[in-house]
Amino acid sequence: MAIPVVLMGLGAIGRAVARAVLTKPELEVVAALELSPERVGKKLSEVLDMPAPDLVITSDVAAALKKAQGGVMVHATGSRLDAVEGELAQALSAGLCVASTCEELAYPWLRHPEIAERLDRIAQKRKVALLGTGVNPGFVLDRLPATLGAVTGPVRMVRAERVVDARTRRGQLQRKVGAGLNEEEFDRGVDDGTVGHVGLMESAALAALGVGLEVDEVDESIDPVESDEDQVGEGGLQVPRGGITGVKQVARAFHDQKVVAELTLIIALGAVNPHDEIELVGDPNIKVVIPGGVPGDKATAWAVAHAAPLLPGAEPGLISVLDLPAGR
Amino acid sequence: MAIPVVLMGLGAIGRAVARAVLTKPELEVVAALELSPERVGKKLSEVLDMPAPDLVITSDVAAALKKAQGGVMVHATGSRLDAVEGELAQALSAGLCVASTCEELAYPWLRHPEIAERLDRIAQKRKVALLGTGVNPGFVLDRLPATLGAVTGPVRMVRAERVVDARTRRGQLQRKVGAGLNEEEFDRGVDDGTVGHVGLMESAALAALGVGLEVDEVDESIDPVESDEDQVGEGGLQVPRGGITGVKQVARAFHDQKVVAELTLIIALGAVNPHDEIELVGDPNIKVVIPGGVPGDKATAWAVAHAAPLLPGAEPGLISVLDLPAGR
Repeated sequence: MAIPVVLMGLGAIGRAVARAVLTKPELEVVAALELSPERVGKKLSEVLDMPAPDLVITSDVAAALKKAQGGVMVHATGSRLDAVEGELAQALSAGLCVASTCEELAYPWLRHPEIAERLDRIAQKRKVALLGTGVNPGFVLDRLPATLGAVTGPVRMVRAERVVDARTRRGQLQRKVGAGLNEEEFDRGVDDGTVGHVGLMESAALAALGVGLEVDEVDESIDPVESDEDQVGEGGLQVPRGGITGVKQVARAFHDQKVVAELTLIIALGAVNPHDEIELVGDPNIKVVIPGGVPGDKATAWAVAHAAPLLPGAEPGLISVLDLPAGR
Repeated sequence: MAIPVVLMGLGAIGRAVARAVLTKPELEVVAALELSPERVGKKLSEVLDMPAPDLVITSDVAAALKKAQGGVMVHATGSRLDAVEGELAQALSAGLCVASTCEELAYPWLRHPEIAERLDRIAQKRKVALLGTGVNPGFVLDRLPATLGAVTGPVRMVRAERVVDARTRRGQLQRKVGAGLNEEEFDRGVDDGTVGHVGLMESAALAALGVGLEVDEVDESIDPVESDEDQVGEGGLQVPRGGITGVKQVARAFHDQKVVAELTLIIALGAVNPHDEIELVGDPNIKVVIPGGVPGDKATAWAVAHAAPLLPGAEPGLISVLDLPAGR
């Protein structure tokens, strides 16, 4: 019998996740929830632009959750945990497991321990599992290094780097990394949280914990990337030579003042040599390269869709991608 | 409280595994078993050439298993499942989980279904888990591709290749891949099972299953590798130009006559460009490269040592590396 699924959030990422979910025979979409009015009342197939169960998108959360009781909520409404805590808590309380794209949910124990504690308590009580996942955080810079840790000895630190050429990515992402802004706008964006990738510190903590290291602190730097030639994004965004084309972020995890993970993320229009590279510094050293890099939006959608059917059988509570088995 | 561990088998691989196990604080070695007489009666620390619990290596299986009841047997006595079934069954019956380097145990359901069935039944009955793991089979060509499947869509096939330069590896491995043999000796060795790597077909099945494909058949070719220059192995083994330096094996898994996994393994003295490469052919395609390749013997030892503490909490029965979580 297929696992009932309620979709929540049908923005760009939510729609990509929904399309991936619809390909999985072990999942059955029984409701689609959206709080922003532009899509409420429309047919799911129309919004997704593909064949889908005959459902009208609703904003009636309680009714939708009831339909999928014992199943999974696939959640894609935001990156910040404090903004989505209520949505997650309501689904867990209604007896649903939750697979969410919320970046801060990937490992909330360090930076949002109270929220993590509250959500974990509800999930344990209702015997359901709650997971934050995606490609980044959720895979390239955390689950993958942790998996590599299975075949090496003591690891001193995890070093990893992901370089993404934003030219071919969604306009929303191009703006989120600050492309086209001047320095003042960029700095203001970083301060108010509208510029920059969310979740890199979470990945740093997960990567270190995943290879058996302890973590007591994380930090992050966010700097603009400037191009030495004119750049044009796919949606038409133009940045002249010398302008800001994107962001370079470095997140570090520490134990006893020593760096145990250092992750570098560059997302910029025209970024040179897009790739992912992961190194476990230890005995023996292991280095992995993914030429071109794991494709972002698609990979996040698949990560959530493949994780969803694993949740009803998982340990109840707030879990992380480190708890997921290797196979689909 | 540490998990009690009995070591079984202290050959080259068994000793490497034992040394890795001794570094793990969550494991406590309480007995060491060896059936070959040369090491029985010696002190464990002496055989391992490192500090170890004050134990004398014994051949009394029942007594050793009794000491570690509720714990784990770390097993490294052979590659062939029919030869080690009795050892595994005895440990499971005594209430121990088992982590084994036995290559055919990595996924025995296809080629040894009756043995798999028998061992699974005992493990289920005694509520203990049984796992075959290592680097190959167990990681590079199966668990790692399956893990990559978490971030991609439908996969048509898994293609992977591992190239190992045998010059720096154990003399036993150099001989096992046929280095220094003439063609007649090589062919005879392949026929009687003394030449060639065991476990590649198991990896092919696991890799395909891990990304959600079905498998109904596997096959394998084993051919000699000839060198175009003189080669010398670390132990002094010399092979003149034109001689056999090692082995090239190709294992394939099929579903409905279509190839769903194709794995190539080259282990030879002086093999050019040692590396691991994994490709998931699908949408989107993903390719991963490990320059130099994951180091073999060390990686197998760590794979077993890191898996052992996970078994008492795992699902009872005969499991595979696809069931293991990402984190240590």
